[in-house]
Amino acid sequence: MKVAIIGGTGYGAVELLRFLHIHPYAEVKTIISHSSAGKSLTDFYPHTDGFITGSLETFDVKALSEQVDFAFFAAPPGVSRDLLPRLTEAGIRCVDLAGDFRLKEAAVYKEWYQQDAASEELLEKAVYGLPELNAEQISKADFVANPGCYPTATLLGLLPAVHNGLINPASIIIDAKSGLSGAGKTPTAISHYSEINENIKAYKLGSHKHIPEIEQALAGISGSQHPVSLTTQLVPMTRGIMATMYADLTTDKTASELLESYENYYETHPFVRLRSLGEWPATKEVAASNFCDIGLHLDERTNRLTIVSVIDNLVKGAAGQAIQNMNMMQGWEQTAGLWTLPVYP
Amino acid sequence: MKVAIIGGTGYGAVELLRFLHIHPYAEVKTIISHSSAGKSLTDFYPHTDGFITGSLETFDVKALSEQVDFAFFAAPPGVSRDLLPRLTEAGIRCVDLAGDFRLKEAAVYKEWYQQDAASEELLEKAVYGLPELNAEQISKADFVANPGCYPTATLLGLLPAVHNGLINPASIIIDAKSGLSGAGKTPTAISHYSEINENIKAYKLGSHKHIPEIEQALAGISGSQHPVSLTTQLVPMTRGIMATMYADLTTDKTASELLESYENYYETHPFVRLRSLGEWPATKEVAASNFCDIGLHLDERTNRLTIVSVIDNLVKGAAGQAIQNMNMMQGWEQTAGLWTLPVYP
Amino acid sequence: MKVAIIGGTGYGAVELLRFLHIHPYAEVKTIISHSSAGKSLTDFYPHTDGFITGSLETFDVKALSEQVDFAFFAAPPGVSRDLLPRLTEAGIRCVDLAGDFRLKEAAVYKEWYQQDAASEELLEKAVYGLPELNAEQISKADFVANPGCYPTATLLGLLPAVHNGLINPASIIIDAKSGLSGAGKTPTAISHYSEINENIKAYKLGSHKHIPEIEQALAGISGSQHPVSLTTQLVPMTRGIMATMYADLTTDKTASELLESYENYYETHPFVRLRSLGEWPATKEVAASNFCDIGLHLDERTNRLTIVSVIDNLVKGAAGQAIQNMNMMQGWEQTAGLWTLPVYP
Amino acid sequence: MKVAIIGGTGYGAVELLRFLHIHPYAEVKTIISHSSAGKSLTDFYPHTDGFITGSLETFDVKALSEQVDFAFFAAPPGVSRDLLPRLTEAGIRCVDLAGDFRLKEAAVYKEWYQQDAASEELLEKAVYGLPELNAEQISKADFVANPGCYPTATLLGLLPAVHNGLINPASIIIDAKSGLSGAGKTPTAISHYSEINENIKAYKLGSHKHIPEIEQALAGISGSQHPVSLTTQLVPMTRGIMATMYADLTTDKTASELLESYENYYETHPFVRLRSLGEWPATKEVAASNFCDIGLHLDERTNRLTIVSVIDNLVKGAAGQAIQNMNMMQGWEQTAGLWTLPVYP
Repeated sequence: MKVAIIGGTGYGAVELLRFLHIHPYAEVKTIISHSSAGKSLTDFYPHTDGFITGSLETFDVKALSEQVDFAFFAAPPGVSRDLLPRLTEAGIRCVDLAGDFRLKEAAVYKEWYQQDAASEELLEKAVYGLPELNAEQISKADFVANPGCYPTATLLGLLPAVHNGLINPASIIIDAKSGLSGAGKTPTAISHYSEINENIKAYKLGSHKHIPEIEQALAGISGSQHPVSLTTQLVPMTRGIMATMYADLTTDKTASELLESYENYYETHPFVRLRSLGEWPATKEVAASNFCDIGLHLDERTNRLTIVSVIDNLVKGAAGQAIQNMNMMQGWEQTAGLWTLPVYP
Repeated sequence: MKVAIIGGTGYGAVELLRFLHIHPYAEVKTIISHSSAGKSLTDFYPHTDGFITGSLETFDVKALSEQVDFAFFAAPPGVSRDLLPRLTEAGIRCVDLAGDFRLKEAAVYKEWYQQDAASEELLEKAVYGLPELNAEQISKADFVANPGCYPTATLLGLLPAVHNGLINPASIIIDAKSGLSGAGKTPTAISHYSEINENIKAYKLGSHKHIPEIEQALAGISGSQHPVSLTTQLVPMTRGIMATMYADLTTDKTASELLESYENYYETHPFVRLRSLGEWPATKEVAASNFCDIGLHLDERTNRLTIVSVIDNLVKGAAGQAIQNMNMMQGWEQTAGLWTLPVYP
Repeated sequence: MKVAIIGGTGYGAVELLRFLHIHPYAEVKTIISHSSAGKSLTDFYPHTDGFITGSLETFDVKALSEQVDFAFFAAPPGVSRDLLPRLTEAGIRCVDLAGDFRLKEAAVYKEWYQQDAASEELLEKAVYGLPELNAEQISKADFVANPGCYPTATLLGLLPAVHNGLINPASIIIDAKSGLSGAGKTPTAISHYSEINENIKAYKLGSHKHIPEIEQALAGISGSQHPVSLTTQLVPMTRGIMATMYADLTTDKTASELLESYENYYETHPFVRLRSLGEWPATKEVAASNFCDIGLHLDERTNRLTIVSVIDNLVKGAAGQAIQNMNMMQGWEQTAGLWTLPVYP
Repeated sequence: MKVAIIGGTGYGAVELLRFLHIHPYAEVKTIISHSSAGKSLTDFYPHTDGFITGSLETFDVKALSEQVDFAFFAAPPGVSRDLLPRLTEAGIRCVDLAGDFRLKEAAVYKEWYQQDAASEELLEKAVYGLPELNAEQISKADFVANPGCYPTATLLGLLPAVHNGLINPASIIIDAKSGLSGAGKTPTAISHYSEINENIKAYKLGSHKHIPEIEQALAGISGSQHPVSLTTQLVPMTRGIMATMYADLTTDKTASELLESYENYYETHPFVRLRSLGEWPATKEVAASNFCDIGLHLDERTNRLTIVSVIDNLVKGAAGQAIQNMNMMQGWEQTAGLWTLPVYP
């Protein structure tokens, strides 16, 4: 199958390229970049030398519909909202890596993203592409909204506990730490090397766009709507997110039983790995891979569950999960092109 | 005043040396290292070249009592427990940077440190040296137990809220991130560069020795004992701790009023600085200095207070605070030798 | 083809595993670790979870000869010297990632490695496995000595110039910088995080074991023996080597003509990529891949050629090149299992 | 003495502030920032909270001449060229941290800086402020051009050898590595965290502005003009430069004798420290301090001298050296305000 990558000069695009290059069934046919059409991706990314032929192209529905059956949107917010429907109308299946279709309610989108949402019809139609939550819907979808990086790490850490009613959803606190690649390729004061090296920086407390995304997904599982506390913090590394989560237990299960609940939930989900009790994952243990690794700690003194969940924000938090969604939409095995070992150390 | 540093080859010792070198009233007379006596500190730390005369010496109470009036213990756990009383008996005032005298109850010490505690009499006599909490006691103390690095960041973040009853102490969750220098100078698997670079690693959930230290101090303020949740995480940097804390509010104060409570509490404490609402400190903003910077976030949606507190673990979390304690014990201004700008960037 | 990895708990082993996992013709059958036999590799490397079955095993020639046709030695110096001949005698082809068979003269080995060399017969028989230099010999070899990481970056940068007589071999100066993973997995003072972070450190000037290896290879090309200056420096990163090389030109070729010489030399070598004039590679542009990227600068003011050559020390400098050698020894395409995009950023 | 800092929002300015704060004789009276006048420095640098009163001000010769006797220019290239003469005419002594007055020949300046030079009269009058080279001239100067960061590390490494004719100046090769803070505070693609972390990047080969500055100074010592090879490379750290230098020996002195020459040369220069033979400095060993540490290696096999020289680019390579120059211009001890231990680790 031929695929297109739209928004070709960001980090999401080069990660898509890296995995699609070893994908058994899909092949990148064209890379679209409005602002850099005519140039080669290799001008921006010398590391792609030898893997790229042809130039970056402009967005042209007709040309795309003749060339590809599938498209990934890895563009800034607002782009897929306008362009994606034109592709789906032309029969091209899509995964959107931006946030334009993740929230079901236009008003909520507008409040947090501070721009207009896509049409309600499209928001309704979009499937939230967390494979470990929505497998069946994804497999039938025409287009999928790929989850945000923080929500992916967070939700995978919380799903079994919320689904099985093991914790009080009103008590959930998420302390999340991210490497800098999540901030994208455009230089800003916050991503300036001398400012972030040897530094941890908390940012956007109470205003991060991923808050409503997490709350919407949790409400869908628990059946009741609760606000969550999310603190996002930048740590001096390029890749990786660790979400450390805290919640009050509503069960008297032992730590082993809690772990067993998680193991059961993820039995059929190849990309979630659980650590033994007394061990917790580190972000490096999933680097450059599509895994989400999770460790639990039952704190009997406080009757709280602490959950440590790690992903590579550019892979399971973006490009890898997008390909996983494509695999499911196409009826291929989830792991096609993605079953690679993390790069360690 | 002449001072001794005992445990001279660790990071605590070289930080003491750095600040004492610019101290107006105190001067390092001797540096003690049992294992390296006879060698020069410069053999271990070329950066001290030009600032050191003489060799590392053995521990000798008589010699010390003739040479110095004050001693800092920057030795591994268990050393000061045995040696510090011999100095205080000889009339030498001491600050202990290890944990041997921080916990008041021997049984609690033994449970968490897994070795025997100092005598109950000494534990009783030791003053817990958090200047922003125990100023008066410190000023009268013969010897002071310098707080741990995580407890310093945590307690300074919580003190005004707990003292003024603004939060429910039973609800406190502490998510703490530290640079690697807190792990000391001895190479271990966890501090191996290739393992920790580009990595965040959670460790010792539920078993960190700083848990009882935090709980003891909070109980002293609130008057009631509550367990806290503490998660400690290593992030790829050398210096700095960020403690992000969450607690349920028990007040309907506005964010401005909460900040005002903090400002009032710290009005006379020069080393705590508060950020304006909507801003939170980064660890780099206190690097190599004795400051603790704090930012607040009132999350109205969850009715929780989020507190972000940062220190340099080797300074306010160790050597700087030790000198601050000395200053107070000697009746000098707290800031003597310590009023320097952070090293930025 | 079934293969064995001997020395299973080092970084070389896990990199072999990562690439062999996606190799079309070879498969890891057993991993040998003398010191950790009976344990699982996952105990040491949680990131391998799901990719490993069975335990680490002891070294047993008979068992190996029944199970595998090929073996990689990724063990400390001195191990392959003793064990590798026993495998080749049993008909198992081998690549040795250590330095035991790289130097042709036993006396030189003893001088630089300060231990006894392998037998002269074996040293004679060993093929130095730099594919871009010794392709034909490698394709006929029973066992191959995989080059060191610094020599790989250095020689690939110098080969076309020395081969074509463009530079004076007596004038070669090599300034090499390496990430820490080259120092292996065992914690030492030099690899302690707090010591190497925010630091560059020069080490082993005039005594690095890779000096005679570089000189031997250059002498083989130029036909005359010359000492080289090599300075090795550790920089705060995990992966990557940059070798910056300087040599006096012996030609009046233009920069474009020099580049053309390089392009001609490497035309049939897929893993060496050349940058356009005015551009030089960065280590990140080859991260986690088997590429060596090279950029030239003709300094007309000094009549010197500056060559910038980068590799990932664990891949082209170790495991990747070992697999490339295996591919050539087996008559497979060089790129089998190795044609993957670098991980960027 | 009251001083002004002009160009108040860059890293040079905050480093000046840090050292001037502990200076015994000088005090910052005003900080000038054209673009940010009216704002507080604390808005840009929260770490200065408590150390700053008043706002950033506009440049006004009259106001300055009433307020201060001394000024530091820490502004972008071209600013001091135009403004500095107006201050010196008003009787204010100046140190310029930019490159506007470093090169004696206007044509050379124009070639390398690609903008017009200051007047020949001013270029003539400017004293090149490398204290270890030009002590006497500096002590009599009205204004001083503070050396660049690479030239400082390079020249201090070469001075004794060139001065004593120990090496052939035509053979000098400089391989320099720098942290990112030398690139300043403005975010650019090259200083974007995700691009430079885990990376070494060579840049500006053959075109770096510091090349003519080094050559001019060396010509002044050796009496003959020779081009040098300089390669500049960015390494993933914030502070620090290591210049590794290579030159052919013109003497048969032993390594000990060479070291002795260096020791003699620097006997009266407190900020240069020499390592024993067999040891070489690391950048961290001078971090946040005004030291330049140097180690030598006599390579008898190649008859070359290798010199490893390290500085903190923001201190001895900028603000610290500027204050050292001020001290000398004022007839104070060189070390005033600067005799502090490096921050380690």
